Amino acid sequence: MSGNTYGRLFCVTSFGESHGPAIGCVIDGCPPGLALSEADIQPDLDRRRPGTSRHTTQRREDDRVRILSGVFEGLTTGAPIGLLIENTDARSQDYKKIAEVFRPGHADYTYQQKYGRRDHRGGGRSSARETATRVAAGAVARAYLRSRLGIVVRGYLAQLGPYRADTIDWDAVAENPFFCPDRALVPELEAYMDALRRTGDSIGALVTVVAENVPPGLGEPVFDRLDADIAHAMMSINAVKGVEIGDGFAVVTARGSESRDEITPEGFLANHAGGILGGISSGQDIVVRLALKATASIRIPGRTVDRQGMAAEVVTTGRHDPCVGIRATPIAEAMLCLVLMDHVLRHRGQNAEVTCPTPRIPARPD
Amino acid sequence: MSGNTYGRLFCVTSFGESHGPAIGCVIDGCPPGLALSEADIQPDLDRRRPGTSRHTTQRREDDRVRILSGVFEGLTTGAPIGLLIENTDARSQDYKKIAEVFRPGHADYTYQQKYGRRDHRGGGRSSARETATRVAAGAVARAYLRSRLGIVVRGYLAQLGPYRADTIDWDAVAENPFFCPDRALVPELEAYMDALRRTGDSIGALVTVVAENVPPGLGEPVFDRLDADIAHAMMSINAVKGVEIGDGFAVVTARGSESRDEITPEGFLANHAGGILGGISSGQDIVVRLALKATASIRIPGRTVDRQGMAAEVVTTGRHDPCVGIRATPIAEAMLCLVLMDHVLRHRGQNAEVTCPTPRIPARPD
Amino acid sequence: MSGNTYGRLFCVTSFGESHGPAIGCVIDGCPPGLALSEADIQPDLDRRRPGTSRHTTQRREDDRVRILSGVFEGLTTGAPIGLLIENTDARSQDYKKIAEVFRPGHADYTYQQKYGRRDHRGGGRSSARETATRVAAGAVARAYLRSRLGIVVRGYLAQLGPYRADTIDWDAVAENPFFCPDRALVPELEAYMDALRRTGDSIGALVTVVAENVPPGLGEPVFDRLDADIAHAMMSINAVKGVEIGDGFAVVTARGSESRDEITPEGFLANHAGGILGGISSGQDIVVRLALKATASIRIPGRTVDRQGMAAEVVTTGRHDPCVGIRATPIAEAMLCLVLMDHVLRHRGQNAEVTCPTPRIPARPD
Amino acid sequence: MSGNTYGRLFCVTSFGESHGPAIGCVIDGCPPGLALSEADIQPDLDRRRPGTSRHTTQRREDDRVRILSGVFEGLTTGAPIGLLIENTDARSQDYKKIAEVFRPGHADYTYQQKYGRRDHRGGGRSSARETATRVAAGAVARAYLRSRLGIVVRGYLAQLGPYRADTIDWDAVAENPFFCPDRALVPELEAYMDALRRTGDSIGALVTVVAENVPPGLGEPVFDRLDADIAHAMMSINAVKGVEIGDGFAVVTARGSESRDEITPEGFLANHAGGILGGISSGQDIVVRLALKATASIRIPGRTVDRQGMAAEVVTTGRHDPCVGIRATPIAEAMLCLVLMDHVLRHRGQNAEVTCPTPRIPARPD
Repeated sequence: MSGNTYGRLFCVTSFGESHGPAIGCVIDGCPPGLALSEADIQPDLDRRRPGTSRHTTQRREDDRVRILSGVFEGLTTGAPIGLLIENTDARSQDYKKIAEVFRPGHADYTYQQKYGRRDHRGGGRSSARETATRVAAGAVARAYLRSRLGIVVRGYLAQLGPYRADTIDWDAVAENPFFCPDRALVPELEAYMDALRRTGDSIGALVTVVAENVPPGLGEPVFDRLDADIAHAMMSINAVKGVEIGDGFAVVTARGSESRDEITPEGFLANHAGGILGGISSGQDIVVRLALKATASIRIPGRTVDRQGMAAEVVTTGRHDPCVGIRATPIAEAMLCLVLMDHVLRHRGQNAEVTCPTPRIPARPD
Repeated sequence: MSGNTYGRLFCVTSFGESHGPAIGCVIDGCPPGLALSEADIQPDLDRRRPGTSRHTTQRREDDRVRILSGVFEGLTTGAPIGLLIENTDARSQDYKKIAEVFRPGHADYTYQQKYGRRDHRGGGRSSARETATRVAAGAVARAYLRSRLGIVVRGYLAQLGPYRADTIDWDAVAENPFFCPDRALVPELEAYMDALRRTGDSIGALVTVVAENVPPGLGEPVFDRLDADIAHAMMSINAVKGVEIGDGFAVVTARGSESRDEITPEGFLANHAGGILGGISSGQDIVVRLALKATASIRIPGRTVDRQGMAAEVVTTGRHDPCVGIRATPIAEAMLCLVLMDHVLRHRGQNAEVTCPTPRIPARPD
Repeated sequence: MSGNTYGRLFCVTSFGESHGPAIGCVIDGCPPGLALSEADIQPDLDRRRPGTSRHTTQRREDDRVRILSGVFEGLTTGAPIGLLIENTDARSQDYKKIAEVFRPGHADYTYQQKYGRRDHRGGGRSSARETATRVAAGAVARAYLRSRLGIVVRGYLAQLGPYRADTIDWDAVAENPFFCPDRALVPELEAYMDALRRTGDSIGALVTVVAENVPPGLGEPVFDRLDADIAHAMMSINAVKGVEIGDGFAVVTARGSESRDEITPEGFLANHAGGILGGISSGQDIVVRLALKATASIRIPGRTVDRQGMAAEVVTTGRHDPCVGIRATPIAEAMLCLVLMDHVLRHRGQNAEVTCPTPRIPARPD
Repeated sequence: MSGNTYGRLFCVTSFGESHGPAIGCVIDGCPPGLALSEADIQPDLDRRRPGTSRHTTQRREDDRVRILSGVFEGLTTGAPIGLLIENTDARSQDYKKIAEVFRPGHADYTYQQKYGRRDHRGGGRSSARETATRVAAGAVARAYLRSRLGIVVRGYLAQLGPYRADTIDWDAVAENPFFCPDRALVPELEAYMDALRRTGDSIGALVTVVAENVPPGLGEPVFDRLDADIAHAMMSINAVKGVEIGDGFAVVTARGSESRDEITPEGFLANHAGGILGGISSGQDIVVRLALKATASIRIPGRTVDRQGMAAEVVTTGRHDPCVGIRATPIAEAMLCLVLMDHVLRHRGQNAEVTCPTPRIPARPD
């Protein structure tokens, strides 16, 4: 049972390989009446697009998206939305030498074990190229969340290797190729990445995503809690090895008297919980952090085995991101949009009648 | 759309509130022919059971499980397995005063917002009591995984507040009420918990779960990767705020040359990946860590609001765990069993024919 | 992958065997705030209950239902509703002789082939006893549909063997043990059934179910059309071999000019479509017919094979319905309630915002 | 929640409108290692293709399918298979006049009610054009079922209006544009259809589909029985109003002693059950019949209302099939292939270990 559909009510089914003719997805369950055109999707794709700075892979893809269905006279119809992105700059010959060996730290070996074969060209289905369809689908969800509920989802690179952002200036994020919210850090990142690229090595990163104006009530305990679905969505992104909500791992050493967010009529006094209590959104900002490992595709030779099990050495010479975390910000935003969108519809299905007489607690005191 | 079913092929549907007459679950999709009786399930329930030491809640529940269906002449039949656990020691009067106020750090407010009402007795559906059914279902999965595939799933308390286990002695885990693998640490934990209990406060914890002898090939990219499903399962446990696979957040500062696990014909040279590559098990040990916050149910007064939105003070006097992380070890094990079981069946459905001629790489070099 | 859950948003997971300790189900996704007690469920169970007339099986079960969760202070909470019915009058010894042979026309052989074993006592999971949980769950759906949307679901026995109801008097249905809407036919049915019982044979039947006051808009093309889901639900009932919507098989010989239901401002001029157009409810009455075969459990000897494949003769001496179609009316009603309930929630999730300026066409002209 | 995905393990997600740029689908869950190219899919599409005789719609579509992903070096990889068919002969101007009125017997009104808007061009999503993607997906399933299990799925037109096929000659089916198995009937059908076309009217039909060499054991009681899923799949086809398995509605008047299929060591003595017992395949031929109504798109004027609710007259002048049942045979075959494929994978996931020592009963005695 393949797992290429995300969501229960807002369902995104993805297809396509890195070096196939095209990638794409089908969005089933988008409410009718949403204004939608390619122009609503393209900006997010452009943010994720490779080849826009010297710090990401030099593969140059237009990532031009085409809406094939589900939109009529500028509005969604409730029918499934087919999205297609053609691959235009695949260089499969770069990958011939890895057809016979398993790159360490990569999915080569596990795909071979699972399916008995693999499309090795550019990593095939395991390539991060697949995330372009997530960003496209996320843009549709984002358009709905923003226009109907005023929800804003945005993110930034919180840390790149040893460099941690000290100030969070949302305006700065769009001004540099790293999605770094700390202007002062950008020159250091540039120098670090230039040096790293020369060594042929790669580096990990930490990305933060935040959703603002989320209404309370989203999330379906006990298994499909909002935080559980966020964790699933984030961990499904290539290279992610850890996910935190709110204080995350810092809760281990915190006392209950410290980590509970007290409430006043003016609002919550803190947000250690990251906007989710008992698996349901509280109306506070949802705060998520994800750790991305360094790409294993590096020019430094590594030990491995070939398909006959014999020792081999591998050097990856294709075009790769020296820090996959850099382009991860729009991907993580997209996944958070998909999770929220799905839960808006799920909540509405069961609870459309709920008229809650209880006070809505402000996200924070004035 | 309520989310009380876990799994796609090995489906566990849970029901029951903390102070209702009973809790239980239905397991649909268990393969036929598995030897199963209550005696296979009870030991895991007993490990999670409250009231077995002074360091957990003093609520005393037998947690006696009853198999209602799906087993005939000692073997599963392929039909759904109904499991029932009666509640015997609920004291609902303890909770009367919280019917009108929202305990900070709890699900009280979000349940009220979502559903327009809530069963406040003992936290109702949001109580950790619900996890007993997870442990029961997990025990069935564990019996299958162990008997059919030799998979061993086990865990331990890696850290409690400031106290971190330095040595991992699996034999020690069962010998103390903390599931602590470091015998030297146990007296310190006891003293710390005794002191904490006197203050009326609570504390967070870190739990590690490991699965050994997992065959390569489990996991369904791109969305239902094994790591994504593990993250979902762990984050669905009450109080969990962070999940890591393998090196987790440590990957942020690691270079690709450090974090890729090189391969030799004798085996992988390291396991930074935690047994999962590209979302698919590699055959190495699966290593998961989860951070649990301190319970918000403490005797120290806290600020909150009541159902009219007026300022109020809350003091929780019911019986609670001063460290929910202590009893989390068997729960986390159960969830990992459920994830693996589901993926064994999912893999088998699609890939039953795969006969992989490629070498199976040993988990570690000799 | 076992298929014991019905519904996508209003999910009913059923468990239990004919001769096990209990049967039951979990309803996940019931909206909060619905007034619900055992008294809302029991009447439907009593209508289906065996042993209430000489024309059905003489097994005497109280079919007393118990709500285990999901209801607090008389209202549903949005949490899963656990329902339990204990088995009290199983006589497993009657079935010993069929442990070794496959009853022709029964599920004995196919269960054995599928699962490699079977609980032969009373047919185990394949027994019609399982339908009691459907009726219980259907009663919860019915309570919602009636109180919130004014939808009325009811049915009748349209034909029993050669005897077809000529007049449809809804008041008559509850007055006889056959659910027959034609009072004049009842004495004939009684005489026919008495004679049939003496021969040890059994007979088929035709049941009609109707849903009134269904709002237009329910159904999810292209695959999960309302009619497709109704067909699925009805065909999932034991012994059903055919399903029709509206004119059903009569459309084969009808011309388009005859079978299209013309529309006037005063309403549709006919209902050949049975209330569903393009897979979506039109607001007209939904009309469904299902054909049930005669039970294969008869006292007349039949040829079969045993588990060694040797020729054998079988005579079924347990207590059985000579016409399973008699008790099928409340079961079919329950399934139609489940389908409609699920589609109400599904429609609402995606289309909650739809405010349709188009005219609502009356079900029929004045 | 839109319902454009069919299947649980072999999942087909369809998209596209009649007059949009393209239609297509994604198949997720196809086992790896299946030889597949466009040449395996095109023949089935060509059988369904419009405009190949004067008896179907004169819209001329090449229906040329393109595989976008999931196949590498001629074999499936286990990754999702994207299929695309461009629309080339849409004439939207024919449909302008129906933008404002609801065609009786069509989905116009119900789509408008459900979604608040509709793509009226060619019927948009409700057009039978959508079934091309079903046929494409069904061809992939068919290739697997045939090559791996020897299952053969085929069908024929059993009745067209008053003309019923008396002899079933499988060789005849491919020789005429009606899929009629009775050569003697073909001239009558031609004359009847020519006359009908002149009147501007349309007619219903009956289609039979048969699956041979189906292994016993497919089907997931109690809800996802094989027959229930077949009923769902068939009723999801445009214009279908009735579905029968085996003897279908004829069971109403049959006695148990007549309708049970007795068993001998040489095989079943009859197949009244249509190859399914207790919702599970028995190894006998699966026999399904479906009734298709006459298309409501006819040139004969009909009464209706417009979007303002005012009385209107409608005459459909676009290109339509005077008997949609004619082209339904390959569509029904495709749906049966999808059902069987899904159940093969579902059965395998849960029951891979089952080694059944019981005798396999031959489909029929020699």
